[in-house]
Parts: sequence; C-alpha cells; structure tokens
Amino acid sequence: MDKFRFLTAGESHGKCLTAIIEGVPSGVNIDVDFINNELSRRQQGYGRGERMQIENDTVEITSGVRFGKTLGSPITLVVKNRDFESWQKIMSVAPEDITDDRAFSTYRPGHADYAGSVKYNQSDLRNVLERSSARKTAIEVAVGAVAKLLLKELGITGTSKVTQIGSACCPDDFKNEVDIMREKGDTLGGKFVVLYQNLPVGLGSYVHWDRGIDGRLAQAVMSIPAVKVVEIGTNPLGYQGSKYHDELVINNGEISHRTNNAGGIEGGMTNGEDLVISGVMKPIPTMKTPLKTVDANTKEETEAHFERSDVCAVEACSVVAEARVAWILADEILLKYGGDSLDELKKNFNK
Amino acid sequence: MDKFRFLTAGESHGKCLTAIIEGVPSGVNIDVDFINNELSRRQQGYGRGERMQIENDTVEITSGVRFGKTLGSPITLVVKNRDFESWQKIMSVAPEDITDDRAFSTYRPGHADYAGSVKYNQSDLRNVLERSSARKTAIEVAVGAVAKLLLKELGITGTSKVTQIGSACCPDDFKNEVDIMREKGDTLGGKFVVLYQNLPVGLGSYVHWDRGIDGRLAQAVMSIPAVKVVEIGTNPLGYQGSKYHDELVINNGEISHRTNNAGGIEGGMTNGEDLVISGVMKPIPTMKTPLKTVDANTKEETEAHFERSDVCAVEACSVVAEARVAWILADEILLKYGGDSLDELKKNFNK
Amino acid sequence: MDKFRFLTAGESHGKCLTAIIEGVPSGVNIDVDFINNELSRRQQGYGRGERMQIENDTVEITSGVRFGKTLGSPITLVVKNRDFESWQKIMSVAPEDITDDRAFSTYRPGHADYAGSVKYNQSDLRNVLERSSARKTAIEVAVGAVAKLLLKELGITGTSKVTQIGSACCPDDFKNEVDIMREKGDTLGGKFVVLYQNLPVGLGSYVHWDRGIDGRLAQAVMSIPAVKVVEIGTNPLGYQGSKYHDELVINNGEISHRTNNAGGIEGGMTNGEDLVISGVMKPIPTMKTPLKTVDANTKEETEAHFERSDVCAVEACSVVAEARVAWILADEILLKYGGDSLDELKKNFNK
Amino acid sequence: MDKFRFLTAGESHGKCLTAIIEGVPSGVNIDVDFINNELSRRQQGYGRGERMQIENDTVEITSGVRFGKTLGSPITLVVKNRDFESWQKIMSVAPEDITDDRAFSTYRPGHADYAGSVKYNQSDLRNVLERSSARKTAIEVAVGAVAKLLLKELGITGTSKVTQIGSACCPDDFKNEVDIMREKGDTLGGKFVVLYQNLPVGLGSYVHWDRGIDGRLAQAVMSIPAVKVVEIGTNPLGYQGSKYHDELVINNGEISHRTNNAGGIEGGMTNGEDLVISGVMKPIPTMKTPLKTVDANTKEETEAHFERSDVCAVEACSVVAEARVAWILADEILLKYGGDSLDELKKNFNK
Repeated sequence: MDKFRFLTAGESHGKCLTAIIEGVPSGVNIDVDFINNELSRRQQGYGRGERMQIENDTVEITSGVRFGKTLGSPITLVVKNRDFESWQKIMSVAPEDITDDRAFSTYRPGHADYAGSVKYNQSDLRNVLERSSARKTAIEVAVGAVAKLLLKELGITGTSKVTQIGSACCPDDFKNEVDIMREKGDTLGGKFVVLYQNLPVGLGSYVHWDRGIDGRLAQAVMSIPAVKVVEIGTNPLGYQGSKYHDELVINNGEISHRTNNAGGIEGGMTNGEDLVISGVMKPIPTMKTPLKTVDANTKEETEAHFERSDVCAVEACSVVAEARVAWILADEILLKYGGDSLDELKKNFNK
Repeated sequence: MDKFRFLTAGESHGKCLTAIIEGVPSGVNIDVDFINNELSRRQQGYGRGERMQIENDTVEITSGVRFGKTLGSPITLVVKNRDFESWQKIMSVAPEDITDDRAFSTYRPGHADYAGSVKYNQSDLRNVLERSSARKTAIEVAVGAVAKLLLKELGITGTSKVTQIGSACCPDDFKNEVDIMREKGDTLGGKFVVLYQNLPVGLGSYVHWDRGIDGRLAQAVMSIPAVKVVEIGTNPLGYQGSKYHDELVINNGEISHRTNNAGGIEGGMTNGEDLVISGVMKPIPTMKTPLKTVDANTKEETEAHFERSDVCAVEACSVVAEARVAWILADEILLKYGGDSLDELKKNFNK
Repeated sequence: MDKFRFLTAGESHGKCLTAIIEGVPSGVNIDVDFINNELSRRQQGYGRGERMQIENDTVEITSGVRFGKTLGSPITLVVKNRDFESWQKIMSVAPEDITDDRAFSTYRPGHADYAGSVKYNQSDLRNVLERSSARKTAIEVAVGAVAKLLLKELGITGTSKVTQIGSACCPDDFKNEVDIMREKGDTLGGKFVVLYQNLPVGLGSYVHWDRGIDGRLAQAVMSIPAVKVVEIGTNPLGYQGSKYHDELVINNGEISHRTNNAGGIEGGMTNGEDLVISGVMKPIPTMKTPLKTVDANTKEETEAHFERSDVCAVEACSVVAEARVAWILADEILLKYGGDSLDELKKNFNK
Repeated sequence: MDKFRFLTAGESHGKCLTAIIEGVPSGVNIDVDFINNELSRRQQGYGRGERMQIENDTVEITSGVRFGKTLGSPITLVVKNRDFESWQKIMSVAPEDITDDRAFSTYRPGHADYAGSVKYNQSDLRNVLERSSARKTAIEVAVGAVAKLLLKELGITGTSKVTQIGSACCPDDFKNEVDIMREKGDTLGGKFVVLYQNLPVGLGSYVHWDRGIDGRLAQAVMSIPAVKVVEIGTNPLGYQGSKYHDELVINNGEISHRTNNAGGIEGGMTNGEDLVISGVMKPIPTMKTPLKTVDANTKEETEAHFERSDVCAVEACSVVAEARVAWILADEILLKYGGDSLDELKKNFNK
C-alpha cells in the first residue's frame, strides 16, 4: 500500500481508537455523517451482544480536514470507547496504577491469546486480548469510509451483504439459526459478499506478483480476524473451462463480458465488470458453553475464560470487508491516476 | 515484504527469466540441484502440454553466492528460455526488428489480454501475453526454492499436493478426468493444499492488519494466475463454534491443540501447529474448443486465439503456491529473528 | 523504514498533533517525563519567539502502553495545541464554519506556500502553512523520544549541540549574534551536530543502496524543514587520502579506529565509533523586514505576510535532528536483531 | 521508492551486474546507445586506474523492452564484467571450487571490510570487498539512464560536473592536482554538483517527513560509497535571512524566483527552479602508500591491502549522483502523475 497509507491504534477498553491516513488528495469532501453511518452499520446485525448498545460509535476528525474538505495532509480519526471510564484504572498508562484486576491466564481457543502471549512475552492475557479484539475493526471501518468518500467522488460505489449464516443460505432463516445457537450457548459463522461498481479497467497488474489486485484484496479480507476463506467471483471448483470463463461481447460498440464468473478480475486487474469478493467467517470462539483449554500459569487443563460476546457477527464482518476493499481500491486509483488534488485526480480519471 | 525482498522479470518467449533476491543472510547453503528439482516439480503433473518437454528449466546463479554459500549480497537467478532462438526476432529489443509476425488482436477470455491492453495501451496483444503468461511462475519457484533452503536451515519444511481435479476428489481418478477433457478439447481446474511443518509460534501478528500472516499468505496464493479461492485450515462454513475451534491440551508439559481446524493460524499468527493453506485454481482458459470473444482491431465478435496449452495445471499451481508460501515464511522468520548471518539467525531462533 | 514505522498528523493551529508508532517490541519502559523533557528541549534556545511560551508541550499516550510498558501494539501520542481555543472556528472541520478570517494569499519566500498551493490547488495559503509549519516537529520529537527510550534499554544514548549561529562559531557569541539580528528584524541559521554512542558494529549495509545507514540518516536530517546541508563525520573537502582515513588499531585486544573522521560510518554501516552527523539550517524565512514576493490572487508583486516568528531556531532544529536520528537507529536495531519483546531483543543484542 | 522500484545485484569480479526495474510505464523509448553512453561517462575522468580500460561497460536488456519500447513489465539490465574469465574460479558459485586464492584478511581503512566482516560473519574479506566495491555503481548508472530516458520524454534533463578536486576549485588545475597525488601515492576527493531542468512545481511534499524530495535526494546521494556531505542549493552557513531567501517575481505573468539559493526546493517540494544538489566525495581509501590497520586473523597491527585503484574518481561519482537523482525524480513523477503508458503519463503531465 503505497499512496493511501494509514496506521490504526487502540485497545478494546482503552481511551480511544485512532487512525492516521496519509496520502488522500486535497479537496475531497469529508462527510462526517457518512463515516458515522458506516460505523453504525458495523454495529448492526442480528446476533450481537450487549456491547453494541453501549458503543454507538462516532468519529472525531482532528487533522487533515478543514471546512469539510481534505487538505492533502494526514487525516486523524478518533473513535472514543464509551465505557472507558469504568476501565480507566485497568487500562492505565501509568506504571503506578499496576493491578491484576481483570487479568486472566486461560488461553481462549480460536483467539490470539496463546500465540500472542508467547510472541509478546505476556503473562496477563489481557495484554493480548485488548488489541487482538475485533473492537479495532471500528476504526478500520472509519478509514474505509474515508476511502469510500474518495471513491464516491469518481462514481465508484460499494455494498456488501451476508449470504449464509451457519447452514442457512436464505436471509429469512438467519434469525432463527441465530436464536437456536443463542439458546445452546453456541456461536455461528457465515459467508458474505462485497460488491463494488463502476471501477475502471486496469486497476492492479499482471507484471509483478505483488501488483495483482486479487492478491491485495485477498490480503485485506483474509486478515480480518475470523475470516478463513476468500473467494473472488464464482468458485470455479468443478467447472470445465468452457463453462467458466466470461466471453467478451460487443454491445453498442462497447466491450463487456457476457457473464462475470471472474468477479471483475482477470490477470490480476479489474476488467470493467463488478468486483465480487466473498469471505467465510468462522464462528466466534467465545461461547457461553466454554471450550477446553490450558491455563498459562498452572500449565493445567481448564475451561476458557468468557467475556461478554456475540452469537454471530457475520454482518459486522461484511461491513469490515467492504471497508477494507475500499482501502485497496482507493490506493489502486491513486497509484494509477496520480493527482495531488481531487481536481487533478478527476481530470486524469475522466480523460 | 520487508526483509526477504525480490523482483522477478522476463517474458514468456524472451531470452530468460531473472530474479534478484535481496535480504538473505550470509552463510546459507545454496544447493543448485535442490532449486533445479523444484523447477522440475513445477513442470510435472498429468495434463501438461508440449512446452514442458521443451523447457526442462535449470537455474544459473550469477551473484550473491560463492563456494555454495550466500554472501549476504543480492542473489541473481536466471532461468533461460530454451526455445528463445526461434523467438529471437519476434521478441527483439531492437527498434529496427519491429514486425507483426506472431502479433494477435483477439482478446482471450479469462486472460489478461483485454484489461492489459487497455491498461498498457497495446494493440498487439502479444505485448500483454508475454508477461501475463504463467511462464513467469518458473522464476517464482526458483525464488521460493531459495526461501525453502533458508527455512530448511532452521528445520522448517513444506510440501503440497493436489486434492481435487475437476470433480474428482480421489487421486486415482485424476488422470481419467484429464483424459476426458483432453478429448473434448476442454480444460479443468482443481484444488490443492500446501503444508509447512515445524514453524515457531508467533510469526505474523494481530497488532496491525498488514502484519497478519494469514493476509500475507492469502495475497501470495491468490495472486497466482488462475487462483480464485484461498482457504486457511478447514473451511468453517456451516460449523458451530463448539465444533470448530481447536482446544488446547497439555502433552508431556507441552502445549498443543487437540485439532487443527485453524490451519496453524490464530489471531494472524502461527500457533505451533502445521500451516495448512489451500487454493482453488480455475480451469485454463486457453482451449482447443475456443470461447467467443472480440477482436481489438475490428471491434467485432470472433473466436479466441489458441496458442499451445495444457489441459490441467493444478499440480504446477500447487508447486507455485508452495514456493510463494515459502517467500512469506522466510520474510516472517527474518523479521522476527533478525540476523545478518545464518549463525546469528540460528542463535536467535534456537534460544 | 520497516519495523519502527509511524505516521504523524496535525495542523499548526489544529486541535492537536498525533502520531501512531507501530513496531515497538513489548516490554519497553515508557517514561512520560522523559518524552515531555524532550518536547521541552525543542522549545528552548535563545532566539525563539512568543509561541514557545504559550505552548509548553506535553504528550498524552492513548494506546500501546499499559502500566508503563509497551504492549507491542501501536502507540498513539497526542500533543495538544494549547491555543486551539482561539483558532477553533478558523480551523474547523465542519463545512458550515467556512470563513476567510486569517486567510492569506501572499506567498512567503523560503516557505512551502507557492509550491504547496500549486500542488494541492489551494487559494487560501493558510491551507498550506498549517501543515508545512515547523510546528509538526513537536510530535516528531515525541516519536524520537520513544525511539530513544528503546535505544536506552540497550545502552545507546544520543545528544546534540549547536556549533555555529550565523557567523559565530563560539557558544559565547551566539546570544550576541541573535540580539543583533533581532534588532535588525533579520534572522539567522546555523550548524548543529548530533552524536550517538555505544552503537553496535554493522547497522546498515553496503549490499544495496537503500540499506546504507548513511543515506537513511541523511534523508532523516535533510527533510527537516530548513536543513540544506548534511555531513557525516568530518567534511573531507581538501583532505588527502593519507590524512583523512581512520586507521585501525588494537587496544587490549579490541579493534578500534585511531581517529573518527568517518563519523562512525564506513561502507554504509556503523563501525563501532561514535556516530557523528551534522546539519546546516537556513535562516528562518519569516522576518519583520519582509521579503518581496507575489500575491496569489492579484498576481502582482508585493511584500511577504508576517506571522509571529523566531529569530533563530537552530537549537530546536538540533533536537529535531537528534530525534530523527533515533528513528533510524531504532529501526536499524529492530531490523538487525529482531525480537518481539524487549527480553528477546536484549538476548539477541547481547549475545 | 514506490513506483520506480528496482534491485541491483552483482559482485565486482562476478560474472555480471544485474538490475531489475519494475514500474516503468509502457511505451517509453529505450535507446541502448544512450545507456551505454552513460556507462562510458562513469568510466571517464582524469585520475582513474587501469580497470577502466579493461571494462568499457555495455548493457544488455533481457526483458521488459520490445522493438525499442518498454512493455510495462520489469526491465532487466545486465552489464558483464569483462575480466570475469580470469576470476571464474575465484568467484565460483560451486562449493567444490572453494579456494583461498585471492583471500585477504587485513581490514582496509575507509572501506566496508571491518564492519562488513563482523556483520556478515566473514573471515575472507574478499566476501565483503566484492559487493562493497564501487563497481556496483555501473549498474546503478544503467538504472539511472532508464530513469533519464523516462524524464526525457517529458522534457526533463540533467547534467553534473566536478567543482573541486582536492583544494583546486578551478577545472584547469584539476589534472595537476591529480598528478601530484599520483606521484605521492596518495589520493584525492572533491566536490560535484548535479543539475536538473524543466521540473514541474510540486514534486515531493511537506505533509509527511518521508515525502520530502529533499530528504529522498539526500539519501540517494549520501548513500553513494565515499560521499560524506550533501548540499541542496547554496550552503546557507553564515547568511542572514534577508540575503538568503529567493524572492518571488512576476515575469510576463509567470511566477518565478529572483535567485535560486534554495536549489529548486522549498518545503520539501520542487518550486519550478532548477534542481541543484551537490556532494563531497572523500579521497579514495586504497592508496599505494598504505594506511595502518589490523589483520583479522592475527589480530595484530599491519598495513592495508592494496588492490589496483584510482587516484581520484570524483567525476565518476558525479555521474553516479546524477543517475541516482534521476531515480528519485522518475519515481516522484510517476507518483504525482500516475499513468500506465507513456501516452497516459504525458496527458496527465501536460494538462
């Protein structure tokens, strides 16, 4: 990621989440309500726990935007953690506040606890949980919202939806599936799809492996906590070549594809069709019915720690994926068209 | 990719493929036979066309290695194209050799032709085909072989295998499936799995999205020409949380996981279990029975250009994926353990 | 910059300056007083204007540190702008607050105004001034302070000092030189030197141009606003080879250099001697006696805009340079020794 | 370096030097004679030793160019080492060829020998010398020639010249100064300046420290082996603000600067004036009259190893600096204007 670059920071129960985005051209309209709406979309979906009610995330912009437009300078986004007050002492920066209140030592299977504590040499697993938590995806969605605002200036838009929850592939059955699991104290994963429209031909490239937009998108989606499968377009498994590939046709002098099994990407490049990328999210590993595990201190087998959790978060996951795809698309647009101001970018884009 | 960095170059019918690798510590044993054997593995598999016989790739090392050991300086790998002589004029660098011999203008569906020619403003589609061809994966496998030699010094080893061809999931049926398609003039894709063993706990990270080893691996596999699906571990679709997650257990005082559905990765980090990553390759788009398409010059509908091709190349694809996973692992090892010489790396790794 | 990476943000009169640092190992002691002391050092030096009294910068850490130690997760540093209240409306993010209060259109020579307004397509030059201002070096010093805390854990320490102000090379004459210029309404630059001690042999490399630590240090110092010259060690101009180079000697079985004209760097690597790097700062371009210039709106010649300013800021500049050198050294240490926790880093470093 | 990226490789007495450049748009005219002429310029200058006669470097392009134009794919450049035949055994890749012929163990002061052998754990210092040698700048000049060809398409041109040799500042005295030193068995450094013309306003940026073009240029020049000082524009040491800064004026409705002390860079950006960057090269450390040093094996004091060398190579150094500046400018142009083909780049550039 070269031109649309950013860093995010923040612990789950820390004071706030922060992101700095560097590389957005000047003159882009930044609609704070749009960003807040994206944050709110991430908090929805049947199957979420109590925290979603507490949070109701909103963003504050503390740099890089003046009178509603980007300046070309780095943009700082801050999303406060609304229940920080009750965690202030537990998450304190100051050495003198040290406490083992809320410390825990039983590795939660399916989480970063075990590998994270080995890697960062931590005995209090809270020091791993706080950053490995999916809470950090809130600020990632805010970054994605800025990317989407940039794309929107060029007419590029994106959406996402859940296509499967547990074994239910029909939206009407999703709630029921979740309710059954809530009763059981179990959890569910599922599948989602992200779509982007009006992309130009030729984002990405075949000339070097790391220029392929397919690979970059796969990285962005697979690195979402809990995503284990990424598909671009139609899964080709079992297809014959003659049935799978998208034939080219002429309509009113314009070239297009008769079908879109490729999901809008051929040769590592956008081909003018809609971008279609799917992901499968694993079931949330924190469950009321706990898994067996090991305690880091006693080195004995025990049961996993339970902190409030959701039954199913596939909808949130799809919103995060949609945001992350926007990161990559914004970067690819800026790489291909250059431009330090929106005006310059638009001229290069529309020519 | 920070420490094990490289660039590859070369056209399909150019003089040679070249790679430069920068960042390998000094003192690593470079076994040229091992590299050549990896190149040869890429050329095998039932269903390949005639070119595989012509090629019989071997590597020449022209820098960075002396008396069998790396020097710490950049390593140059060269794989000659054996039939270059007959292409010399057609692929000439010199302006005065310009010719439209072997030029073509019908976009081949499923290939980079259309998007590539728009992006790079080319009317002769050969200028796209030559680099977008899967031929470039030969030098990628050579780079992966160097990465594997580094990993081997630390006891880390990898393999891969094909798990499905077309609709056949049983190895015994693979040849038959291919033969049927060859007869039909059609092609097949399939699925493969890559395994790496003896990885340390804690490669990758949860602290920032682009540090997740799952995302980096997904990029490396998804950007292989023709791969459209990447899975890490067991596909969780349809699983309940209580059935999917890998419980931790103690065996002789050592922590391990009872199962390995996570494919060796939790929280974006290796967790000490085997790394398991799968990919689905689409069927090869070049077929004797041609697809419908458009001609770039006439803007009329026509049939796709056919250059010699394979019926099925999933086995080659699995070898390429295995090589690419080695790139990422080598880089992650160097990031985590540092070390400018193999001795220093080993001390840091084994402590 | 690979492992110690960060982004900074913030306008001169915005709400705050922010930085996110990613890549610091866990377990590093973060002494907030130390960081604040570095911020205070940047504000000192004879010749500064009134703003320095207003500011009295202090840092707040909002992520990445718990109970005085780093967690391995990204660290957020925030330095508030103390006079934001009076600028709140003028620097507002909200579109509805748009105003031309404090707007200006006369390009200030020696500043980013002209090129910046062309590049980012701005008619109000405040939109350039606010980020191009040296104010942003405050947060850069805070980032450097974190780097210095990491280096300190390994015994590496740095200092800097001013060696020339205007034409005065003797510290006793510096104040006098500044007073004369203040009276004249003119400004002065000068020269400073940064020293770092106890560096290991072999940071940086000769194997590839961008691995040379000399080049990386030069980038870090030359990109300080106002620095126009960077020197490593003794300026060799006019020396003969036999007089310039540092001969190697044995003292108690240890190899060292008889002199240190190389400033601790040979072949793009640290050689075990003290690192010595100097810079020349140009005189501050904003002066009470204004320069001639052009107005962006009228396209007519006029005199430069004057906002409160300093007569001389070489001491601040030397503190910024010292901080920036720490960035590079921290990164090189992490690249060479790896380590996800301070314990692991120390083991690798001391072996 | 984001868009014009490359790696170079090759030992001083290895088979060849190689570079791969990735990111050049398609359609750029590649004039091999121009590249060879740049290589030849690097070999000139009074004061060079015998090797320059042996070499007479020429480039071979083995990828990325067809019929005189770039394809958009990576470009491979190869410069053969003409005396490789006599070094073939000594520089062999094969383990069985191991020999200590031409091995040496006395650290040469001013070279990478000492730090390099510690870093890469080498007892034969030839393993350090071979890559740390200035020989590798030949391929760097070839890479710079490709960058210059790209710049030339946009009307941007560069030159360089030597401004001081030893203590002689007048070109007429240079030869004499060199002759005296040759007689003494001593060496000389000197100063050079690089100029680029017709640059657009706004390459580089003030918005983030690593976007400053001044810093990037300083890295590129300072990391040349032997360069110890980099200056942009006029050295401001001793100037008052009122005398140093470049006032803006209107000429025929066009804005320009009355003087160019800033060397064409304000606020980390090009400002439309000529780019002026100077460097000071230290005297070559290999001298007939040897320096005192230490032997790596015996750990005793001794005299430095002497391999054939030059008396003065400032002219070569200036050609290398000119090439490296072209790298950065090409990258900045591509970052700012985008464009995958030369046509697209030109449209964006000229609008």
